[in-house]
Amino acid sequence: MRPDEALERLRVLGFDESDAQTLFDHFDDAERRGKAGHGYSRIEWLETLELDPGAKPEKVASFPGFEHWDGNGALGYLTLAAICASLEDDPPRPARVVTAASCFPTGTLGYWVRWLAEAGLVALLTATSPARLAHPDGGPPVVGTNPLAIGIPTTDGEPIVSDVSMGKVTYGDVLRGAASADDLVPFGGEQAHKAFALALGLQLVVETCVGEGYGAFLVAVDGEFGPSDFRERFPDLRLPGDR
Amino acid sequence: MRPDEALERLRVLGFDESDAQTLFDHFDDAERRGKAGHGYSRIEWLETLELDPGAKPEKVASFPGFEHWDGNGALGYLTLAAICASLEDDPPRPARVVTAASCFPTGTLGYWVRWLAEAGLVALLTATSPARLAHPDGGPPVVGTNPLAIGIPTTDGEPIVSDVSMGKVTYGDVLRGAASADDLVPFGGEQAHKAFALALGLQLVVETCVGEGYGAFLVAVDGEFGPSDFRERFPDLRLPGDR
Repeated sequence: MRPDEALERLRVLGFDESDAQTLFDHFDDAERRGKAGHGYSRIEWLETLELDPGAKPEKVASFPGFEHWDGNGALGYLTLAAICASLEDDPPRPARVVTAASCFPTGTLGYWVRWLAEAGLVALLTATSPARLAHPDGGPPVVGTNPLAIGIPTTDGEPIVSDVSMGKVTYGDVLRGAASADDLVPFGGEQAHKAFALALGLQLVVETCVGEGYGAFLVAVDGEFGPSDFRERFPDLRLPGDR
Repeated sequence: MRPDEALERLRVLGFDESDAQTLFDHFDDAERRGKAGHGYSRIEWLETLELDPGAKPEKVASFPGFEHWDGNGALGYLTLAAICASLEDDPPRPARVVTAASCFPTGTLGYWVRWLAEAGLVALLTATSPARLAHPDGGPPVVGTNPLAIGIPTTDGEPIVSDVSMGKVTYGDVLRGAASADDLVPFGGEQAHKAFALALGLQLVVETCVGEGYGAFLVAVDGEFGPSDFRERFPDLRLPGDR
């Protein structure tokens, strides 16, 4: 799929120009970063779903240092985009926890924390998804691949972005045929219990904050001692999120 | 070392009765949970250090939804204990990010999030430590084993506690001779880049919030939809943190 075709197919799905562009920007970034499982292939997937393209996410509760949003039937991509834009417009002083209910699918979480890190904010983000990982001892899938993404502003302007799925492979890779569903297990081999524990812990953080259904949990901080000079200190290292 | 000897040796180091008991409680819990690397063996280690047993941690900044503490030369155990007690006395409404500078050593992080989860709070905690993990591509150690601990209140009253070090082994295990320093690498085998990315991301979150030196980063939330009924839903699973 070419970029102009991708954008057009999003418009055809019924999204307004702003939302189509928001979605395109996410899928296009994933393509450029080699994360094809989160790229244009997702448009074909969206075309198979029952969508409400007019749905708009809403901030439904706000306290000092905390906000709760509801996707209101919008795609999770659009909910996270609205949250990032809101954090950029009204930065935390100095910290804010943001939770989001009905927030699915959320795409490559690194995209959202990079957005915030480029705006000068340290960000940690997790989001839940259908149960695909079983306990390492066996049994049915009980947790999603529940990634943890961390974005760090840096002195050279290019954020360091760690975006780690707790699965050995991503569902996106399975979706596009690049991996087997049998590899949808916690990563880590003989230490897979560690990735399972992280996936479970992150899932329960989200569940206790947003209730039933898929959601997101985000922490954004205006770090007193940022941006980080780590890349300057270790210029020869290939860092997470670098192309 | 027997429990009464452990407590007495902490008193001999110069800690007042309250601090000696706080330290003993942590080491004793680690012993009981089979985490010997964080147990009484640490008292022998403390006896080799230059300590300031009279030092007391202090809350040095407070904003809605955010606090910053300084260890002031106190052991990190005591700083985290003071932070947990403070969160229990004055719970977040509904979320608070707490950062701590000069916070080392911090012991088994699961202990602190279990404390908060028993008080009804969802908690995520990370803390930095000396660089012991190299990049999977090689080179010198650049990040600590930087665990992420997550504590979840549950309907049956026994928190679910995920406490994952990003190292294949812990430094505590190396310290007591149970593991080789050569195994101080990011966990995950062929996917060790994932644990390295998590360790680096968490380290930079701490560094950008507390500056030079070892510190801690904690998020505590009074989850609207907690406590979790996960253990009731999956009664046969051996969950993280269960004995």
